[in-house]
Amino acid sequence: MTIEKAAAIGGGVIGAGWVARLLLNGIDVAIYDPDPEASRKVSEVMKGARRAYKQMLPSGLPKEGKLTFAKTIAEAVTDADFIQESVPERLDLKHKVLAEIDLHAPANSIIGSSTSGIKPSDMQVAMKKHPERLVVGHPFNPVYLLPLVEIVGGAQTFPEAIEVAKEIYSSIGMKPVVIRKEIEAFVGDRLLEAAWREALWLIKDGICTVEELDDIMRYSFGLRWAQMGMFQVYRIAGGEAGMRHFMAQFGPCLQWPWTKLTNVPEFNDELVDLIAGQSDDQSSKWSIRELEKIRDDNLVAIMEALSKQNKGKGWGAGALHKNYTKQLAELASAKTKASGAAAKAKATKPVKKVAKKIAGKKG
Amino acid sequence: MTIEKAAAIGGGVIGAGWVARLLLNGIDVAIYDPDPEASRKVSEVMKGARRAYKQMLPSGLPKEGKLTFAKTIAEAVTDADFIQESVPERLDLKHKVLAEIDLHAPANSIIGSSTSGIKPSDMQVAMKKHPERLVVGHPFNPVYLLPLVEIVGGAQTFPEAIEVAKEIYSSIGMKPVVIRKEIEAFVGDRLLEAAWREALWLIKDGICTVEELDDIMRYSFGLRWAQMGMFQVYRIAGGEAGMRHFMAQFGPCLQWPWTKLTNVPEFNDELVDLIAGQSDDQSSKWSIRELEKIRDDNLVAIMEALSKQNKGKGWGAGALHKNYTKQLAELASAKTKASGAAAKAKATKPVKKVAKKIAGKKG
Repeated sequence: MTIEKAAAIGGGVIGAGWVARLLLNGIDVAIYDPDPEASRKVSEVMKGARRAYKQMLPSGLPKEGKLTFAKTIAEAVTDADFIQESVPERLDLKHKVLAEIDLHAPANSIIGSSTSGIKPSDMQVAMKKHPERLVVGHPFNPVYLLPLVEIVGGAQTFPEAIEVAKEIYSSIGMKPVVIRKEIEAFVGDRLLEAAWREALWLIKDGICTVEELDDIMRYSFGLRWAQMGMFQVYRIAGGEAGMRHFMAQFGPCLQWPWTKLTNVPEFNDELVDLIAGQSDDQSSKWSIRELEKIRDDNLVAIMEALSKQNKGKGWGAGALHKNYTKQLAELASAKTKASGAAAKAKATKPVKKVAKKIAGKKG
Repeated sequence: MTIEKAAAIGGGVIGAGWVARLLLNGIDVAIYDPDPEASRKVSEVMKGARRAYKQMLPSGLPKEGKLTFAKTIAEAVTDADFIQESVPERLDLKHKVLAEIDLHAPANSIIGSSTSGIKPSDMQVAMKKHPERLVVGHPFNPVYLLPLVEIVGGAQTFPEAIEVAKEIYSSIGMKPVVIRKEIEAFVGDRLLEAAWREALWLIKDGICTVEELDDIMRYSFGLRWAQMGMFQVYRIAGGEAGMRHFMAQFGPCLQWPWTKLTNVPEFNDELVDLIAGQSDDQSSKWSIRELEKIRDDNLVAIMEALSKQNKGKGWGAGALHKNYTKQLAELASAKTKASGAAAKAKATKPVKKVAKKIAGKKG
């Protein structure tokens, strides 16, 4: 299942990350973003993404898709079979943008929202024509490298739309995980928010600096979580007695004073100053662009290292990375062949076929 | 600063991990553990650790230290200059064991406790002779591979003891981070506990399974946190506007219903069954030993990959890993030379020299 023509609504860090992933997969993208700086910002992200993909594919990248800047949402989505919305996290803005997308997108297109936490049911009420094709497709920064996408359906979303979305995201090298029940912030940001709140307390209370906290993460459980999640890690920690033993041993800790859980720290200028200042101490020796480069190089290296594990089959994100780079390499070698066959293959339009079924079911 | 003779009190998953790290650094260890199975369990961990270190050092390991099983705490600690306590997390037991260690250990030794969360001030009250030499040295499983150790001093701990502990842990390839204020659970377990509590809610409420939650972690922010902690990651996410912009953008989320923060889920049989059952679905195809092997191979591969980043200087845990493997390789090549020089070098006893200063200050 492939995308023929994509549209990106919003070109910030996340939107531009989607654009980069799509273009580097050879897919044409029309983007709409009213920011006069959008073109420059997207091309900065593209530069970084291209650089990262060259590390993954020293033998050469696939032919990039074509990027066009649309003047309106209507123009961007009018002939797209996949549309990803990545505008700021304000429900009123989401409503306005999704209503506009809904009005002009082909009936059989799939619409994904990058929201980090707004429920799709709360968003799709603004879509008067085909709300059943909206899913949350929540990615993680940098979108062109990190494979996870959380898929969440709302009350009006058709199950088929979720199936098609899964296949679409998989086709561009991602790992879709469908969330079973619709809640705010889904799963990833629930976990991140819990850790973030606790981290703010630790800094505010002077227990450690942001640099020390970061070191504590990346020299310990961060290394673990790059390859196994917390439940599998704790299963091993239970030793020969396993998960049940681990839970019996650590269950009581939940009642100990081990977290600040009942409060949210007051989010005032003092806290912002403290954290921003410490963050400068930690990182101002690098520009954001340099930090991005370091981060991307590290992520590629980690995924590549994991792709050689598990008797060469790859493990976790490494197994996916192995398949993804293989797929891109095949695409790259295909570009040198006659383009007729590729065009013919695309003409089967599998996304549209399934999506048509969805649209048909509604109307 | 090197350790001449170490003692390990407690040989569970953590205690045995310390033993493995010490032995593989060529340091003699006396261990005390009343469990009749202790010897078998420690040798299982040693087997895994030896295997992991062989991946790190294909050219050969240093000569291993000698392991002796002591019949009493007194026998284990009597001539040790570094003692690591890793008994279960019960304050009464910690008191009993630390009092016994204190009674028999040389006055100028350093005593580290592996506790995940008990305050050192609450433990050292049981030490009648030299409480000033107790520090928390909280490691992360697997201790022989993960470099982080949180160092925490109590009300009676001398600053010099913290300095010596830092040097001791560094000498065996670890990354010590000194926690600035004494709190329960320190920094690492505060963050872990916050994420764990949230995870329990997500499973209990049927939002996802343990396997899905693990995938959500290891295909997204887990990869990020293996190389940068959350503050540096968010600084980048702020884009060109940086940390202040990020905080302004995401500050309000703290007030949204993005976490279950105010409650602890009831920890009953139903929840344990649910999680243990889902954990079996996820992982029962591997034995714990197989999972340990996979985990260790992955960790070594990730640290090795990071050791080649940052223009070859290594990044984060990778930079440390680079130095550590170099140090071990030098130690390995030294074992083939005349042992006289090594013995002479050891005779300077730098740990004891500084530690003597501490003991002197007290008495």
